[in-house]
Amino acid sequence: MSLKVALAQINFVVGHIAANVDNIIAAAEYARDQLHADIVVFPELTITGYPAEDLLLRADFIETANNAVYEVAERVEGIAMVIGFPEQAEGVLYNSAVVLYQGVVLACYRKQALPNYGVFDEQRYFTAGHKPCVFEFNGVFMGLSICEDVWRPGIIETYKQSGAELMLTLNASPFNAEKIHQRETIIGDQVKAAALPLVYVNQVGGQDELIFDGASFVLNSHGEVVFRAAEFKEQISVVEYDGTNPLLTTCAPHYQPISSDYQALVLGIKDYVRKNGFQGALLGLSGGIDSALVLALAVDALGADKVEVVLMPSQYTQDMSNEDAVLEADALGVQYHVIPIAPAVQAFTGMLAEVFAGTTKDTTEENIQARCRGVILMAMSNKKGKLLLTTGNKSEMSVGYATLYGDMAGGFAPIKDVPKLLVYALARYRNSLAEVIPERVITRPPSAELAPDQVDADSLPPYENLDPILERYVELDQSAGDIIAAGFKREEVVRAISLVDRNEYKRRQSPPGIRITSRAFGRDRRYPITSGYRGV
Amino acid sequence: MSLKVALAQINFVVGHIAANVDNIIAAAEYARDQLHADIVVFPELTITGYPAEDLLLRADFIETANNAVYEVAERVEGIAMVIGFPEQAEGVLYNSAVVLYQGVVLACYRKQALPNYGVFDEQRYFTAGHKPCVFEFNGVFMGLSICEDVWRPGIIETYKQSGAELMLTLNASPFNAEKIHQRETIIGDQVKAAALPLVYVNQVGGQDELIFDGASFVLNSHGEVVFRAAEFKEQISVVEYDGTNPLLTTCAPHYQPISSDYQALVLGIKDYVRKNGFQGALLGLSGGIDSALVLALAVDALGADKVEVVLMPSQYTQDMSNEDAVLEADALGVQYHVIPIAPAVQAFTGMLAEVFAGTTKDTTEENIQARCRGVILMAMSNKKGKLLLTTGNKSEMSVGYATLYGDMAGGFAPIKDVPKLLVYALARYRNSLAEVIPERVITRPPSAELAPDQVDADSLPPYENLDPILERYVELDQSAGDIIAAGFKREEVVRAISLVDRNEYKRRQSPPGIRITSRAFGRDRRYPITSGYRGV
Repeated sequence: MSLKVALAQINFVVGHIAANVDNIIAAAEYARDQLHADIVVFPELTITGYPAEDLLLRADFIETANNAVYEVAERVEGIAMVIGFPEQAEGVLYNSAVVLYQGVVLACYRKQALPNYGVFDEQRYFTAGHKPCVFEFNGVFMGLSICEDVWRPGIIETYKQSGAELMLTLNASPFNAEKIHQRETIIGDQVKAAALPLVYVNQVGGQDELIFDGASFVLNSHGEVVFRAAEFKEQISVVEYDGTNPLLTTCAPHYQPISSDYQALVLGIKDYVRKNGFQGALLGLSGGIDSALVLALAVDALGADKVEVVLMPSQYTQDMSNEDAVLEADALGVQYHVIPIAPAVQAFTGMLAEVFAGTTKDTTEENIQARCRGVILMAMSNKKGKLLLTTGNKSEMSVGYATLYGDMAGGFAPIKDVPKLLVYALARYRNSLAEVIPERVITRPPSAELAPDQVDADSLPPYENLDPILERYVELDQSAGDIIAAGFKREEVVRAISLVDRNEYKRRQSPPGIRITSRAFGRDRRYPITSGYRGV
Repeated sequence: MSLKVALAQINFVVGHIAANVDNIIAAAEYARDQLHADIVVFPELTITGYPAEDLLLRADFIETANNAVYEVAERVEGIAMVIGFPEQAEGVLYNSAVVLYQGVVLACYRKQALPNYGVFDEQRYFTAGHKPCVFEFNGVFMGLSICEDVWRPGIIETYKQSGAELMLTLNASPFNAEKIHQRETIIGDQVKAAALPLVYVNQVGGQDELIFDGASFVLNSHGEVVFRAAEFKEQISVVEYDGTNPLLTTCAPHYQPISSDYQALVLGIKDYVRKNGFQGALLGLSGGIDSALVLALAVDALGADKVEVVLMPSQYTQDMSNEDAVLEADALGVQYHVIPIAPAVQAFTGMLAEVFAGTTKDTTEENIQARCRGVILMAMSNKKGKLLLTTGNKSEMSVGYATLYGDMAGGFAPIKDVPKLLVYALARYRNSLAEVIPERVITRPPSAELAPDQVDADSLPPYENLDPILERYVELDQSAGDIIAAGFKREEVVRAISLVDRNEYKRRQSPPGIRITSRAFGRDRRYPITSGYRGV
């Protein structure tokens, strides 16, 4: 007996229930009419988008979401649809999946494994279900599961014992570099152990800090990947089964270091701008590597006509920085403005002369320069309705090597979770497609150019040492002792860690950025500001 | 038989395990030597402070915390101590309470009810315990419980059945205006139903957004309060029992509207400054009610010598604003500076003339003024090591009536969770003690003074209508329909709610502030920025 299962890897807007319903209906009709599918599977919490956060605490929101399920059921016939929604029942909320066919609910499943770690807070909203859900469709017994369910040992096995012949899994699994390997390996092992084939549908798109990469896949009963959808794109695909045996189809390539990261960042910018209704984006271009990369990402995400840049030189800006910035703008064809900051810096210096009399120059004067740039950029963002992109990287964000309300100003920080060494790798990758960043921007020593002849290496360990120390401390929770024991210099470890500890207050006021590592600052790493803990 | 139980209502520093250990030991020795107590009960997670957030994910932190328990046990003899700590066992973490006596662990209890709503994320860190813990001390069978345990029906009853004669409860229960009534009423009802007397010890102090008010109490077996410790102060007290019958002692007065809120705000500022090591605080004084109140709070928290203010008039600042600001500074005896912002505003206007050519004036120009003030204040904060206090109130924060990086700049926002009408009430309360805010600051129409003859009422519904609408929408999750049905004007409801919805991005970058209502912005209300949800 033949069965065609469609995978609807769609980009939803969190909270926009009406738009999501239209999206679901269009996808179901496409799967039915163009792909001749019998059943179409959508991502987790399809109706609301994921994660809807505290919108899930609103009674009006939940009521609208529950009504929307009936609307979908009534508006599409001729294909079974598996959609996710926050199910209000018995005075509590479940993270549920429902099977709709010919206006009728065939089955409803309540997620059993509710993740409450990392970026996930599902136990804040949902009550866990306690039993599997198997339904028969087209002569096949299908089991429903949702995301975390199939990562935990036991649930797939329970389904096997309940008579399921094919698992359908709805997911909202955010991207990071290791994630796609983990998904296919861990879930593949469980599928193999239970000999129960599986369809895995992931959402795609950017939502504040999170990127969902799609890369939906189909496993046969040996746990082998027989189909994989593209990364970072919407795609509605179909897999044909002979009984429950998937016939070999196509596999899109999966995660490639650097190039996948690049695509993740492009999608993150594109979706933040689009979903929040900005007219485009703007950024300050310094001639340094960070802003050069953010410019390339922004242009690749939005098109050159939607991006503009501002050069804001000071007395400490080297000529080559200005030259390189202009070269970058020209190479990508974006409009640029040049606004020297001297008049504002001089004004503030004069205004503060009396209160600062008798004090010595310190980072205060450097911060004033950065904040004058922040005022200019925010004024342009306000006037033009364009999103200001912040250009700081993860290494800076970790150690606080950035000025609050200065270079940290902006609505979105695309490379906030990109360590400096990866910034270089992404720049080289982009240049390998077409050179848009002058070579010397990549090779010259990085500098904030806020004081004479300043370079980052004056204040920070070299990035070749700093980045791995930060990864161990921030992402892997290693102690200073562990990191020193691994061969890093004690003084560099002490310096890096104490800077990370002291700068939580800055990070708390930073704009959101795109998570691409296994632990980003933001909802992923929740530290107190007031803290007597010292990592060293 | 006589028993003396001490309640150690102490102010701990999150993460500072060594300091907390010293604090515990000093308190235990005081309870033993001065109060002649047999047993002393500390707040929840005594060793680490509460909430330690993601520090609890660090192996080094947990190891240090577990070792600290043994240190406390070894260093104090002659009194039993009940302390809280994150217990590492069987590969997971428990929120535990341990009874130490003569260097030995008498009992260890694992919290059963782990709150994961509102400001609480305990299921992110802890595994729930599953059984009561009763131990015998001085001939009395005592039961251990931790915070949320005694809010839920059933657990106290289980203890009664397990033979407990007296409940000891360790707590970290944050303040809000309704909280103390809830604690005493809800827990009192359960105590009464089980006829099991209870000792409730709460921590006191400020921790980022949270204020713990103390107000520890003792209930007899009828659920009646027979002892209550002071609010907002450290206090080590003792209650004597005849068997398990508490002998009548003293009750500090509990929550008084306005005056308790005022004390909460004072403690919040004091602890943020002290625990983060600032030299003092500074703020911009506009002549308006918000900055006048924050100044009074700061002086009451830190003393006049630790606070300084800056007046930053513009062409739109009325003379009476400057006059009143000076009166406020003089009344409280703080140093003030006057720095007119015109030079910086003119500099930016000139610098932006070319890019803004052909555009019309809008809020951009207002924001530039606010941001010039932000640059001045941050420069002074950087130079002097003083915490910049942000003066925005909750009504403004709700509707986004504030400039990001302008008047929103700062490290701490004391009245961020204080609605405008409560700002007035607090100002009047403070003046009732001694007049520090000129009467016309309270009576004149509020204005941002960023444009000619501007008043808040040009852009916003009157606060008498706005504040209750905001409370219903933000704190109570009521829908627009609910609020209109309650009698509020449709156009005002629509205006207020759409502003709340649109301004999440600003709030995300705002400094932390002190939570005093049942739902504050920050960790208490977690909304997506990118959201298609519209409350109207």
